Amino acid sequence: MKRLAIGIDLGGTQVRAALIDADGKILRRTTLATAADAGPEAVTDQLHQVAMSVSAGVSSEHLVGVGVSSPGPIDTERGIALSIPTLAGFVGISFKQMIRDRIGLPVWLENDGIAAALGEWRFGAGRGKQNLVYITVSTGIGGGVVLDGRLLHGSRGLAGHVGHMTIVRDGENCPCGNKGCWEAYASGTAFAQRARLRASGQSETMLGKTEAPIDGRAVFEAALKGDALAAALVVEEADLLGVGIANLLHLYSPDIVIIGGGVANGFDLLQPGISARIKSAAMPSFRDTPIVRAALGDNSGLIGAAALVFDAVAPPAMVRI
Amino acid sequence: MKRLAIGIDLGGTQVRAALIDADGKILRRTTLATAADAGPEAVTDQLHQVAMSVSAGVSSEHLVGVGVSSPGPIDTERGIALSIPTLAGFVGISFKQMIRDRIGLPVWLENDGIAAALGEWRFGAGRGKQNLVYITVSTGIGGGVVLDGRLLHGSRGLAGHVGHMTIVRDGENCPCGNKGCWEAYASGTAFAQRARLRASGQSETMLGKTEAPIDGRAVFEAALKGDALAAALVVEEADLLGVGIANLLHLYSPDIVIIGGGVANGFDLLQPGISARIKSAAMPSFRDTPIVRAALGDNSGLIGAAALVFDAVAPPAMVRI
Repeated sequence: MKRLAIGIDLGGTQVRAALIDADGKILRRTTLATAADAGPEAVTDQLHQVAMSVSAGVSSEHLVGVGVSSPGPIDTERGIALSIPTLAGFVGISFKQMIRDRIGLPVWLENDGIAAALGEWRFGAGRGKQNLVYITVSTGIGGGVVLDGRLLHGSRGLAGHVGHMTIVRDGENCPCGNKGCWEAYASGTAFAQRARLRASGQSETMLGKTEAPIDGRAVFEAALKGDALAAALVVEEADLLGVGIANLLHLYSPDIVIIGGGVANGFDLLQPGISARIKSAAMPSFRDTPIVRAALGDNSGLIGAAALVFDAVAPPAMVRI
Repeated sequence: MKRLAIGIDLGGTQVRAALIDADGKILRRTTLATAADAGPEAVTDQLHQVAMSVSAGVSSEHLVGVGVSSPGPIDTERGIALSIPTLAGFVGISFKQMIRDRIGLPVWLENDGIAAALGEWRFGAGRGKQNLVYITVSTGIGGGVVLDGRLLHGSRGLAGHVGHMTIVRDGENCPCGNKGCWEAYASGTAFAQRARLRASGQSETMLGKTEAPIDGRAVFEAALKGDALAAALVVEEADLLGVGIANLLHLYSPDIVIIGGGVANGFDLLQPGISARIKSAAMPSFRDTPIVRAALGDNSGLIGAAALVFDAVAPPAMVRI
């Protein structure tokens, strides 16, 4: 019998949902703007709305459950949203229970970095690997890890908060309140801020010379057109990514590192600089680990959310130890 | 029937061995100075010698096997010493096979940080926990991690090389060749070097005023006697330890962090500074994780080596998921 799951990728700006089959194929999808300021009840209503939308007409005997990827921190042992910065009112609420009550199907809830790692593991660039690190570099930096053939969770399911390791003691301010976090240097936000700062008052660069805002995409485009400042910014961003990735190689010893998120759109430009830093910063045993771009693009989390469901109801025996 | 294992803790200066029972109790022990310059054959002979010494007269039906904790990096999937800096000639050799051939008993070989983490998990400060990080702070900084009720290995068994995460981008030189590693700042070696540098030419401190060398122990002793420079050095060391530990909290999300190695002798003095840094550097969800001293002291690795054997032949079901 064909098994189907609803995958939902809840973000600070969009709620995306899809009906997904056990091969990770998206059959239908829908998107809403997140009611980020409206509180947990309103957001849960949105999850219900998108779930109904993508599963309309699907027989309940085919529908295995709902997987939800959510911004963290979520205590996934208890299904509780601890304190989600991007969603108003998500402090200490029993989010998993709320979703289950509203949708009326079995629910799996996961921190977004871990859900995306699962998506890439089951259906993307990490298929068949025993050990992988997934990082998403966009507004912030998040991640998820598979080691020894298992998705890592740690206490309360909070492992893999890779963006908040310090790479510069007492360095730049991070939105988390700490100083010197990897996220404060290498996120898409930090990359764009650095670009705006350096481009300001510079006549030699094309950055900032049009109506378009200076963001990561604009820097990558300018670099491709030979803009020297943009090229230097890309080199610096790559180096900063490399510092953090080298750390992750020593800490987790993955077979592969997978990069997703908006900044991964410039992966080909960043790749040489990332590799150069890893060559100098990583011990010989770790230097040759492949660093690749996420294969599922924007859908790692969405497909990963569905994979939570399939993994729980019928784990793929072949990749378990 | 009483089951016994031989635990061997191979270090750069000492080979320590013990006969250990399934409760982690040391029944007999012996120590040799490591023939660190004499090559793999000579070191393997030493392992044979200490194994025979502690198991003399023990019936083979009681003796389950030999566990060896070794300086890394060891590829424990293949039993190969990749390139051990402290032992001459240990480059790409089939170390596990050599030990097995020489001793004639089943052998388990593990990277030292991971073996010590296992020792603390089974018989020390981490007993019964599902998630723990063990770090050893001495000449360098090493570690081992238990997550979701399992000892982490990662690709080739090299996970947990926590000493070589960068905490200061392009910072101080590390023996590994990189710059800015945690080990380059917070190891016992770095701590002692900083103390010697700061004490030099200072008349107000008792450090360096006797024949005794300035090392970590001397700094702790002087701090206890009210020496201001020593107290400041302790505060700085604690802060540097805290930076790295805060990183590990985000990366692994342990229930507890266990500190071993020589620098842990000053744990009570270091503890307030470690906690202060964690309060400022860790996100709220991670701040209250207990940081404790290793319960097995110098024997975490020795007892952990024996635990490798007992875990393999009869894993304790209760702590597995």
